[in-house]
Amino acid sequence: MLKTFEVRTNNHNELIDITSQVQEVVKSLGVKNGICMVYIPHTTAGVTINENADPSVKHDILMEFSKLVSEHDHDYRHSEGNSAGHIKSTLFGSSVHLIIDHAKLVLGIWQGIYFGEFDGPRGRRVHVKIIEG
Amino acid sequence: MLKTFEVRTNNHNELIDITSQVQEVVKSLGVKNGICMVYIPHTTAGVTINENADPSVKHDILMEFSKLVSEHDHDYRHSEGNSAGHIKSTLFGSSVHLIIDHAKLVLGIWQGIYFGEFDGPRGRRVHVKIIEG
Amino acid sequence: MLKTFEVRTNNHNELIDITSQVQEVVKSLGVKNGICMVYIPHTTAGVTINENADPSVKHDILMEFSKLVSEHDHDYRHSEGNSAGHIKSTLFGSSVHLIIDHAKLVLGIWQGIYFGEFDGPRGRRVHVKIIEG
Repeated sequence: MLKTFEVRTNNHNELIDITSQVQEVVKSLGVKNGICMVYIPHTTAGVTINENADPSVKHDILMEFSKLVSEHDHDYRHSEGNSAGHIKSTLFGSSVHLIIDHAKLVLGIWQGIYFGEFDGPRGRRVHVKIIEG
Repeated sequence: MLKTFEVRTNNHNELIDITSQVQEVVKSLGVKNGICMVYIPHTTAGVTINENADPSVKHDILMEFSKLVSEHDHDYRHSEGNSAGHIKSTLFGSSVHLIIDHAKLVLGIWQGIYFGEFDGPRGRRVHVKIIEG
Repeated sequence: MLKTFEVRTNNHNELIDITSQVQEVVKSLGVKNGICMVYIPHTTAGVTINENADPSVKHDILMEFSKLVSEHDHDYRHSEGNSAGHIKSTLFGSSVHLIIDHAKLVLGIWQGIYFGEFDGPRGRRVHVKIIEG
């Protein structure tokens, strides 16, 4: 079972909560038990699971990633100017994986699923693949 | 098949070898072939696969992560003071995935599975989900 | 279904495109739908998904990772001298996961799968595990 939804980003670097969209896919497919894979088909974006309560955590993650990975390093060779986005994409990873138990995503009480935009604003896509079992 | 076990951490930053607990789950469920997902339901912890032989590797990973991600950055806004833990959680990731072949985890000779604590000491939980196939 | 192939690396730090080898495994097994897991059984190597077009992106990722993680930090204790490789291995991760749809890997237009060598040159192995569904 494979579904795709779209995400509209509004900033160059941004974390967008996609938990409800993923939960909606699981619900619409009526899956009882299995694994839910959230896959990002872009190379300057990623996905992570982190705190869903205080929005300042999103700020701190993006801010620290921008300190770690220089936006304009003189040693970058890639001419499009978005090397930082590619590097953050690898640091985040291209997929996260959730457990489906009794028709619900198993998330810790503070966990949400975040789309990571690192070269926006853009229209992006998210694939949700479910394996029952 | 879903099982959960508990981990007690003893330090603020710590790597704890959970390989034997994960192997025990696989053994207890009698799975022959499939995928084993190890999932951390916390936002200031993570999981990784790394060297199981020389304990100084654990030291070096934790030390270098603490150099990368400042514990007390003046630009952090999150008031709980554990932003570094949230960021390390995203750098590690919330899950690792192992192959089960002939009823055993397929691990490289030097590989062990490590729970990463970044805001301890605490009691933590680890979910193990297995899909046969 | 589990297959293993070998990769020969030529540099200390290197990204090697293994997309075609993974696609070949999927094709040879005749899988229609499912998940494809690419697993690295080494602790100074990793795997990531990133841009397959401009080779300068590979350069920029490796260069920036070497700025992030010091090759010779005086605080490293691990006597083999490859602590940086272990740390990069954790930053990359030990597996990536692809969707198989209509017998093909679902990859974004710019996405390729890269083996990350961080303590080469060496002979390395890559496991490909497929779950149908």
